[in-house]
Amino acid sequence: MPRYRLTLEYDGGPFVGWQRQAEGASVQGALEAAIGKLSGARVTVTGAGRTDAGVHALGQVAHFDLEKHFAPGKVRDGLNHYLRPDPVAVLDAAEADGEFHARFSATGRHYLFRILNRRAPAALDAGRVWHVSHTLDAEAMHAAARFLVGRHDFTTFRAAECQAPSPVKTLDRLDVSRRGAEIHIEASARSFLHHQIRGFAGTLKLVGEGKWQPRDVRKALEARDRSACGPVSPPDGLYLVKVDY
Amino acid sequence: MPRYRLTLEYDGGPFVGWQRQAEGASVQGALEAAIGKLSGARVTVTGAGRTDAGVHALGQVAHFDLEKHFAPGKVRDGLNHYLRPDPVAVLDAAEADGEFHARFSATGRHYLFRILNRRAPAALDAGRVWHVSHTLDAEAMHAAARFLVGRHDFTTFRAAECQAPSPVKTLDRLDVSRRGAEIHIEASARSFLHHQIRGFAGTLKLVGEGKWQPRDVRKALEARDRSACGPVSPPDGLYLVKVDY
Repeated sequence: MPRYRLTLEYDGGPFVGWQRQAEGASVQGALEAAIGKLSGARVTVTGAGRTDAGVHALGQVAHFDLEKHFAPGKVRDGLNHYLRPDPVAVLDAAEADGEFHARFSATGRHYLFRILNRRAPAALDAGRVWHVSHTLDAEAMHAAARFLVGRHDFTTFRAAECQAPSPVKTLDRLDVSRRGAEIHIEASARSFLHHQIRGFAGTLKLVGEGKWQPRDVRKALEARDRSACGPVSPPDGLYLVKVDY
Repeated sequence: MPRYRLTLEYDGGPFVGWQRQAEGASVQGALEAAIGKLSGARVTVTGAGRTDAGVHALGQVAHFDLEKHFAPGKVRDGLNHYLRPDPVAVLDAAEADGEFHARFSATGRHYLFRILNRRAPAALDAGRVWHVSHTLDAEAMHAAARFLVGRHDFTTFRAAECQAPSPVKTLDRLDVSRRGAEIHIEASARSFLHHQIRGFAGTLKLVGEGKWQPRDVRKALEARDRSACGPVSPPDGLYLVKVDY
């Protein structure tokens, strides 16, 4: 029974998120429908990251099994055909061995959070960035992010509905840098808690505005209390960039 | 009577183009309506480039006059407020002297044309790039573009409806380069003919595919005949980046 591995780009805007839900269009559901049209089979697609509504992907990874064999190029082109007009693109399809699991085999996940930091709202990138009109101090945000890197109990940055067995995670990277009118937050870890990066973005914004000092982020982390977190950012600026195996 | 100069970003997708028309929403019309709401005045806005339907701007420049004085920051923020939810953003507003004319004072116009050159269609950049799935040879395209730079009779690359008094123009720059999965065509001139850059893009694509040799572009130029032009590209990948004064 061949297993296929997909690399995916999508605009999370029109979806309720990665995961199939009772109501609304999901990325998973769009893919499963396209696979059904291509192969005639009803399959379940497993993704590396269950991105929230409005969160985008540049390199989500997913897998599924088919009874019948299809050449990987046919899977890629056929799914892209049947996915239209949904904003989901299969960048790559490859055969994977039966041990490969998009979620459990992943050893690293890389996210980008884009803040558009200028007076004017986004015209071309509406829905793709978090617009913050007051000038943010990216260096202070980066200094604050230093306190979050490493192995910590991230209860402060964990959503109430998070299903992870433990709030203890190792954050490998959290870099903040200015790129013209944008501020980029780049985060890497083996895995993240639900809303963790959006909690980081909302908290680091307080530092960028000067409402918090970088050391206040350490205090918030050490509080291990969700009420110590800054406001969770909107999803628009968040991208799942790459998954390592 | 104060004159204001605006720098604009917009998504051309939902508009019939820059210019107000009998039917459909235009960028000019959206701006004039927003200025009316801000000031109570009925004004005409003049743009540096009359971009076609679907053509985007990162730095269009426009001017208009008001009887009453408004601080430039108020003009910027007020127009951005009244422009919602149209995908038009005022990046900057400044007072200009009465001699300044967005169209006639311009000494240079810079455009970018983005081709997404990969098998998978655009998910995040749908409507913002021209998707070409067969691999293009960017170096051959760049070599062909050499024949177009300089002062020429560009009748071959001129739309039937072009209103320019002469087909003779000086093309200052036409560079083609690969940027990952994209090919960028960067074009600069004092002014362009109608459909000139989209004619370049469609013609250079033929070279990138190997259907034409670079020298065939010279022959097409020398033919001074619209039927010698490659198919005019769709508007989606074209951006007015900057205007010089």
